[in-house]
Amino acid sequence: MNVKEEALKVHKENKGKLEVVSKINVENRHDLSIAYTPGVAEPCMEIAKNKEKIYDYTIKGNTVAIVTNGTAVLGLGNIGAAAGLPVMEGKALLFKEFGGIDAFPICIDSEDPDEIIKTVKIISTVFGGINLEDIKAPECFYIEEKLKKELNIPVFHDDQHGTAVIVLSAVYNALRIVKKKLEDVKIVINGSGAAGIAICKLLIYAGAKNIVMCDSKGAIVEGDNKLNNSKKEIAKITNKDKEKGQLKDVIKGKDIFIGVSAPGVVTKEMVKSMAKDSIIFAMANPIPEIMPEDAKEAGARVIGTGRSDFPNQINNVLIFPGIFKGALKVRAKEINENMKLAAAKGLANLIKEEELKEDYIIPDAFDKRVCDAVAEAVKEVAIKEGIATI
Amino acid sequence: MNVKEEALKVHKENKGKLEVVSKINVENRHDLSIAYTPGVAEPCMEIAKNKEKIYDYTIKGNTVAIVTNGTAVLGLGNIGAAAGLPVMEGKALLFKEFGGIDAFPICIDSEDPDEIIKTVKIISTVFGGINLEDIKAPECFYIEEKLKKELNIPVFHDDQHGTAVIVLSAVYNALRIVKKKLEDVKIVINGSGAAGIAICKLLIYAGAKNIVMCDSKGAIVEGDNKLNNSKKEIAKITNKDKEKGQLKDVIKGKDIFIGVSAPGVVTKEMVKSMAKDSIIFAMANPIPEIMPEDAKEAGARVIGTGRSDFPNQINNVLIFPGIFKGALKVRAKEINENMKLAAAKGLANLIKEEELKEDYIIPDAFDKRVCDAVAEAVKEVAIKEGIATI
Repeated sequence: MNVKEEALKVHKENKGKLEVVSKINVENRHDLSIAYTPGVAEPCMEIAKNKEKIYDYTIKGNTVAIVTNGTAVLGLGNIGAAAGLPVMEGKALLFKEFGGIDAFPICIDSEDPDEIIKTVKIISTVFGGINLEDIKAPECFYIEEKLKKELNIPVFHDDQHGTAVIVLSAVYNALRIVKKKLEDVKIVINGSGAAGIAICKLLIYAGAKNIVMCDSKGAIVEGDNKLNNSKKEIAKITNKDKEKGQLKDVIKGKDIFIGVSAPGVVTKEMVKSMAKDSIIFAMANPIPEIMPEDAKEAGARVIGTGRSDFPNQINNVLIFPGIFKGALKVRAKEINENMKLAAAKGLANLIKEEELKEDYIIPDAFDKRVCDAVAEAVKEVAIKEGIATI
Repeated sequence: MNVKEEALKVHKENKGKLEVVSKINVENRHDLSIAYTPGVAEPCMEIAKNKEKIYDYTIKGNTVAIVTNGTAVLGLGNIGAAAGLPVMEGKALLFKEFGGIDAFPICIDSEDPDEIIKTVKIISTVFGGINLEDIKAPECFYIEEKLKKELNIPVFHDDQHGTAVIVLSAVYNALRIVKKKLEDVKIVINGSGAAGIAICKLLIYAGAKNIVMCDSKGAIVEGDNKLNNSKKEIAKITNKDKEKGQLKDVIKGKDIFIGVSAPGVVTKEMVKSMAKDSIIFAMANPIPEIMPEDAKEAGARVIGTGRSDFPNQINNVLIFPGIFKGALKVRAKEINENMKLAAAKGLANLIKEEELKEDYIIPDAFDKRVCDAVAEAVKEVAIKEGIATI
């Protein structure tokens, strides 16, 4: 049985992947009187007196909503809230398995950003954090920005920021190997969707000074009137030398290629044209921008993909469980840029100098140390910067 | 430690009562490729092609939303969505423990019925049923009516209908003992909130012909201009002899007293004034309208309360898990009146003629047969009446 058949079988036999269970025993009348009436009135009254007590007596503090409207599900596009549910269940399962966090899918049947914002706000009581998932751009930017402003719990669009943090973490360790500095390297990012833009912004925040972003038409250059708003914004902060042309033109001499684009768009010749000790993160799924063996042959030194069957899998699951765990632990009001940097560094530093090598710049997804390493790093910054509330 | 202290301790130590766990193993890369990418794309695409497949591949078919706005929580009143969460978690836990159903609290921070309706509709994708909980009257009537019309999944306000069904079930078995017929008996219901009205309507639907309802001012009589809309409606279908006066006046000669009102409002003298072999269901919590021993002394033959420390506990937990289980099993579009009658009869008939006695008209909440007996009865009617969709 192949993966497709097995996936259908497993989903069907189990009728989905999640269940909601009790953390406490309810085996007799006494148990019932504690979990439900009359005992349950006590925590209710405590919360009625002081709303903050909801964190003491309920699931809120460890519960995250996986919010989608199904407009950008995996590589499948706009398949709607219902068809997106298996992914949201999967995401919830990852939250639990990797982060010990309880997450529940909230599939919102709407493409109206304001309606989505309103819905999330009005049901946010139960949740200690909001993970936005698979909502298409540019709506995802607006929804996230507005919710961050209006809610006092962390709101995190994983497709953007989870991806950006894991890429930054991979960049940190790749640079340790090639002994270059982030401030000095020339980077080209191919793909200017939500993930590409988030990666670009976080790299700049982290200190990168020289990035050229490409979309399917080539390099994004300031002054091009055909650019949409998010690309206009990117054009202002990237491509200072106003490089023009296709990816094959602007990749020349670059130290790092980051692809969140399409299968096979990078050739061996293009890799050969890059600087010495080039770094290739080819994350198109399931077929990368260039296959690792081809990139290697063409002279790339460090290579990562989105796939689990090659070394250096650039996988969000290394990031979002730890980021939320850290944020929830100290009831952070938000997840800010420095918390993201700390997450990337926390993960990167798990690999000691003597372990670090071309084929091992990112810990394994099942490495048990990962979540807490990220969480601790995030927590520390949240406390230091006054984002923590306890 | 008393119940209050223990309840606070248990809620605090466990940080609430629910957790969301995976039904399938995720221990290695292969498991991950089935539960998440790339395998998860398959069920997504199946649902995108045919929306009904959501029942095959996701949690929807066995998942219920516990929806509240916290305006009528237990006996605590309008304490708000946040303070209501411990009750909603408790309810979800009961769904799982007694019905094997996964339920999740949706606490809506709004007192606007239309906003609540809109919110439930827009997030209903994930849920196979909606359990409305602790929403105050009269808003609860409007919200339920509208959601029933606009959603094609069961919507059930347990405070109304769960209570009505368990009372009807208790009435059935009490009448078996006193050998009277529902059509013939005179009933007085004290308390005209959501529960009282639902009990009244269901008893009439089941065949009761003679009911007088009282509120705190006494008997509700048609033609009284001061009545609110729901009471006006009730006045039309009850009290045909236009009995007037206080509860103490209209209880005279009645066969059954049903109280969903206030502690101690029924005296021994009032019970003495009832018909021979009177039946008393005194459900005010935690202190009933009359204590069972007093009712007994005054001549009542069958007595039930809402309390677990007396015989015949009239407890919704005997009903809602089975009603939802039966409805979900056949994907019923709704829970209609005949399904409620079937639930009441299914539960009542669990007690065989030779077991039935004054102190045992309702099975124990922990009787393992209860949920399936109710579910099977509900399912059968749903199929017979074309409410089932599979």
